[in-house]
Amino acid sequence: MNAFVLEGSDARLVSDRREPEAPPGFVRVRTRLAGICNTDLELVRGYMGFRGVLGHEFVGEAVEGRFAGQRVVGGINFACGHCPTCAAGLERHCPSRTVLGIMGSDGVFAEQFVIPERNLLAVPEQVADETAVFTEPVAAAHEILEQLGNVERGRALVLGDGKLGLLIAQVLAVEGFAVDLAGHHLDGLGWMEKTGVTLAGNGPSSSPYPLVVEATGSPEGLTTAISATAPRGVLVLKTTVAGSHEVDLAPVVINEITVLGSRCGSFQPALGMLAASKIDTEHLVDSCFELIDVERAFQRAASPGARKVLVKAGPQS
Amino acid sequence: MNAFVLEGSDARLVSDRREPEAPPGFVRVRTRLAGICNTDLELVRGYMGFRGVLGHEFVGEAVEGRFAGQRVVGGINFACGHCPTCAAGLERHCPSRTVLGIMGSDGVFAEQFVIPERNLLAVPEQVADETAVFTEPVAAAHEILEQLGNVERGRALVLGDGKLGLLIAQVLAVEGFAVDLAGHHLDGLGWMEKTGVTLAGNGPSSSPYPLVVEATGSPEGLTTAISATAPRGVLVLKTTVAGSHEVDLAPVVINEITVLGSRCGSFQPALGMLAASKIDTEHLVDSCFELIDVERAFQRAASPGARKVLVKAGPQS
Repeated sequence: MNAFVLEGSDARLVSDRREPEAPPGFVRVRTRLAGICNTDLELVRGYMGFRGVLGHEFVGEAVEGRFAGQRVVGGINFACGHCPTCAAGLERHCPSRTVLGIMGSDGVFAEQFVIPERNLLAVPEQVADETAVFTEPVAAAHEILEQLGNVERGRALVLGDGKLGLLIAQVLAVEGFAVDLAGHHLDGLGWMEKTGVTLAGNGPSSSPYPLVVEATGSPEGLTTAISATAPRGVLVLKTTVAGSHEVDLAPVVINEITVLGSRCGSFQPALGMLAASKIDTEHLVDSCFELIDVERAFQRAASPGARKVLVKAGPQS
Repeated sequence: MNAFVLEGSDARLVSDRREPEAPPGFVRVRTRLAGICNTDLELVRGYMGFRGVLGHEFVGEAVEGRFAGQRVVGGINFACGHCPTCAAGLERHCPSRTVLGIMGSDGVFAEQFVIPERNLLAVPEQVADETAVFTEPVAAAHEILEQLGNVERGRALVLGDGKLGLLIAQVLAVEGFAVDLAGHHLDGLGWMEKTGVTLAGNGPSSSPYPLVVEATGSPEGLTTAISATAPRGVLVLKTTVAGSHEVDLAPVVINEITVLGSRCGSFQPALGMLAASKIDTEHLVDSCFELIDVERAFQRAASPGARKVLVKAGPQS
């Protein structure tokens, strides 16, 4: 089958990838639509040392099992299900997990892939593929709410107007935060203001924020984020960048900032937000390529200011 | 009067410092005994760009006001008392605060200093000067408990067997945590085991900890601390080091670690712990110098493995 495979620093489309077989508990899923995430671009640059089929944002059609023939989305962490971490409800942190298209498991830029059946959720009929494909990044954005718990819904700053930043800003605004969005490509983001988000330009307000989300995707964002966080405030880190970078953490100690690392989230509330049309994903779509053109899709995704690039595999209904 | 003054990178004893005058709300305090903190050593190396009389750990005798003639300890953050941060009960984070011997206010390595009267606490009679002088660092250790709130009292790792690390390990053990202490100078720390702390050698256990406290005083400690923290665990940062350092924060995001910057704490519970003899400070005292020998005291404090060096000013009762 066709698949977009990373080997070392070489990522390319191959046509002779063997179709995957589903181990016990797994089912095969035919990819319908997949999204390119910054993590995919980082993986190509060497982050995590991943080798295999790339891709983890998908909407597909289950080939077998209880969702056979249905459209599905699904959690990307493949947990063992029986270790103490899993028993504590932290499956997404299972120490022996693999992660779809990121760590130890082939991903979705292919005609087919396999995934644990219990990771799947059926997509409601009214949710289009072009919307459902955002479930994974919306879940990653929603994770912030899960981690914050009942903190006051006050002022918040989202640093980074990339794909994830735009989703985070919307999710926080839906939840009642007064969100300022700062970034380098705010031109053409007028539509974001309809979602309740204020475009704050390149620099945040001079008054520090009780909540700051760092989603710039660049190591330099962290220093700005730290200085924009109020004493005893919360700084959520969403950026994972390969390697070590220079950081001055003294202000974190002096201002007693809580830095919250934040990764994947629950799919159910994310899919619920999308089904209720609470998130504008339409404006987030940059372009759509066929799987056969996935290399061009990645080039496009890597260009400055590009939003969500989608990759279509197989027939669309 | 005699005072130990930092000007640029030059810290030395002067004999002609003018005696301070107390502004409204302040009182004069005669230093009885003062402690040298790693922050003092960092200040001499240029951290914070402080100029003035060094020193913030003290027990003294109030010259005037409602504590006149009594032995006192006192909070080191001099807040404005009326800004929104102060109104929110975060006086220690008041944006226009000065900090005793650290930022904008002369400190305690002198015959006298001034401090807001409301910052003072009377020292109970049964608490010796040599114990009471630890109130500030014990408060800094206790701050961790205040920030953690009701988290489960499980396994904890304290990285760093310096002065602050030894106090933090004890405070956590008193509070019911099962504390492992890791550091480079564990020889001669057998007495720590009586406080309920386990000496874990240079390296922590291979099983990650739900709570890790980084108190090594060195930028390298952070990487060890991050890797020792369990997924969704809490990493408390106590080390403030001047300048930027190389850090790989990707594991913080991947493991969704909560990094908690932690600085000063409340004096009342700290003094309570000391008055109840819950903390062994006797073994923490390295040596004691007269104020006239403060330069030698600082040399001693800067030598590897040195514990708390005390400086005596004025007559001891």
